Formats: sequence, C-alpha cells, structure tokens
Amino acid sequence: MKALILAADGFEDSELLYPYYRLQEEEIAVDVAAPEAGPIAGKHGYSVEANLAFADVKPNEYDLLVLPGGKGPETVRLDKNAVDATRRMLETGKLVAAICHGAQVLISAGVIYGRTATCYKGVRDDLKAAGAEYVDREVVVDDNLITSRVPGDLPAFSRQIFKALQE
Amino acid sequence: MKALILAADGFEDSELLYPYYRLQEEEIAVDVAAPEAGPIAGKHGYSVEANLAFADVKPNEYDLLVLPGGKGPETVRLDKNAVDATRRMLETGKLVAAICHGAQVLISAGVIYGRTATCYKGVRDDLKAAGAEYVDREVVVDDNLITSRVPGDLPAFSRQIFKALQE
Repeated sequence: MKALILAADGFEDSELLYPYYRLQEEEIAVDVAAPEAGPIAGKHGYSVEANLAFADVKPNEYDLLVLPGGKGPETVRLDKNAVDATRRMLETGKLVAAICHGAQVLISAGVIYGRTATCYKGVRDDLKAAGAEYVDREVVVDDNLITSRVPGDLPAFSRQIFKALQE
Repeated sequence: MKALILAADGFEDSELLYPYYRLQEEEIAVDVAAPEAGPIAGKHGYSVEANLAFADVKPNEYDLLVLPGGKGPETVRLDKNAVDATRRMLETGKLVAAICHGAQVLISAGVIYGRTATCYKGVRDDLKAAGAEYVDREVVVDDNLITSRVPGDLPAFSRQIFKALQE
C-alpha cells in the first residue's frame, strides 16, 4: 500500500504532519510531492521534505491521496500535473482525502460536482458554486472521497481513512 | 481507557498534537493538564486547551501519561503536582510515554535511575547523569516506560504506545 500527499509552501502543518506520521505508523509508504522536490515550509514553520516534484507523480502507483489545507492548495491547484493526478485518482476509484482548503484542489480538478463534501467554512461557497452538496460535519464520506473541515477534525478524518483502507 | 498529557507553554506542537489527536482517533478520552486550566501555546503557535490544572490531576484515573517535548517540560518539572503525578503513574505500572525534552520531567520525578531510555540529544547527558541507560534509537521500551527523541520518531513512538495499551 502506498500514499501520496500533494502539498506546497504554506501548508497547514498539522493537516500534513498528522496523516504523514499516521501512515508511517501503519508502515504505509508515503510520498510527498510539491512543485519541486525539496523542503517545503508550513504556515507554522515546520519543514517537510517533498521527495517528488508534481511532474514526476505517477498517480496509478498510489492507493490513497491526501490533500492537506492551509495556503498550500492555492499553489497546488495551479499545477496541471497535480490537478490531473487528483482527477485520475478520484476517477479510478482510489481513496482521496481532503481537509480544510484541500478542497480547493478538488474544485480545480473538476471532480466535486454532485459530490457530498465538507471543507473549511471560508471556502464552502466555492465548493457549493462548483456543484457540491456542502455539509458542515467533522468528516463526510462520499464513496471514495473523504473530507473534513479543520485540524480539530483530524481524529475523525483519519478514522475514516483507515476504515476505508481496510475495506 | 483514559490518557493524560502534562504540558505548558512552549510545548513542541507536533509532539503534543499527534498523540492528542491519535488518542481521540481511537476514541480514548484525553485530559490535558497545565499549570492552570485554559489555553497553552506551542512553540510553533498552536493553541491547545488545558482542561485541568496540575493541582487537579488525579493520577489514578489514567492508563497512560504522555509527556511532549519542546520548552514546556522546563515548566512542568517545576510543579510538584505534575512531578508527583508522573512518579505515581510510573510506580503504579501505568504506561508513561515521554518524547524529546519530556524526559526532563522524568528526571525531576526521580524515576529514571536504572531505566533504559532515549530523549532529545541536547539533554541526553542529563538523562545519563540521573542514572539512566541512554540509547540513541527512535523508540525505547523499558517495561512501562516508552521514550523517543524527536518529532520524526512519532510514528514509532505511537506504534509502541498502542501496542502496549493493547497488552
């Protein structure tokens, strides 16, 4: 089993670090991809090493995609490779988990129409405008799409990710 | 099952937040105690609500004690109630898990003599001087004491905590 995190500078530190460490705890391999390979900095100052550039991501290799929030998604969503990988993984039935502003990448990938999902409240109107059914709940599971709102939702978000990975 | 985190301003954010969320993911109740009840601030700026003051901690209520690192332990170790609770839990066979500078609280509690443990390298000589057998490894399990060195050890640290809780 293998997981991918798509991120960029300004990521919400706990929303990247919690799944990153949590997957390692389960001994699941995790790749972190960013605009370029190398260190990226979270909004709270944590540094995480991206071992891949977006251009080198092979979406078929992964079972799970995690999209953390913060300011990173506004960079991630501008990259065609990152957006294509997100679309590809969702459309091929891989598990996709987005928290907070991570939903902005789903909007740019054009995959949110008709889906039930949640996100950070500051961008909920964008989610609705893109055709999603927005729900204000700590975690929303719609088939292979798992979404949450804020760092405090991480326990429920993670619980549902591992439940889905076991199925 | 119930867990206790002893912390103070300046805590290493990920070392508090990871176990805090991880325990909630398993639906284990977690109390956070600090010098006074109320918000405490991590060195990276995260705010966590302490729902208990050290003076109100009843160590017999808990199955697990977590001691995060950062600058918090230098405050925690000065409080007699916090130090007494740590000693009490370790001596009564409860699970005690300390990461990074969290080991400073173990030293002040006078419980590290003759134990095998690890900690942040900047304080390893204090651990040795207090009579511990210091080992440079991501996680060290010595009976009911689990110790780790740095945030990057959190996956291994957490794996051993949940393994021990299941036993």
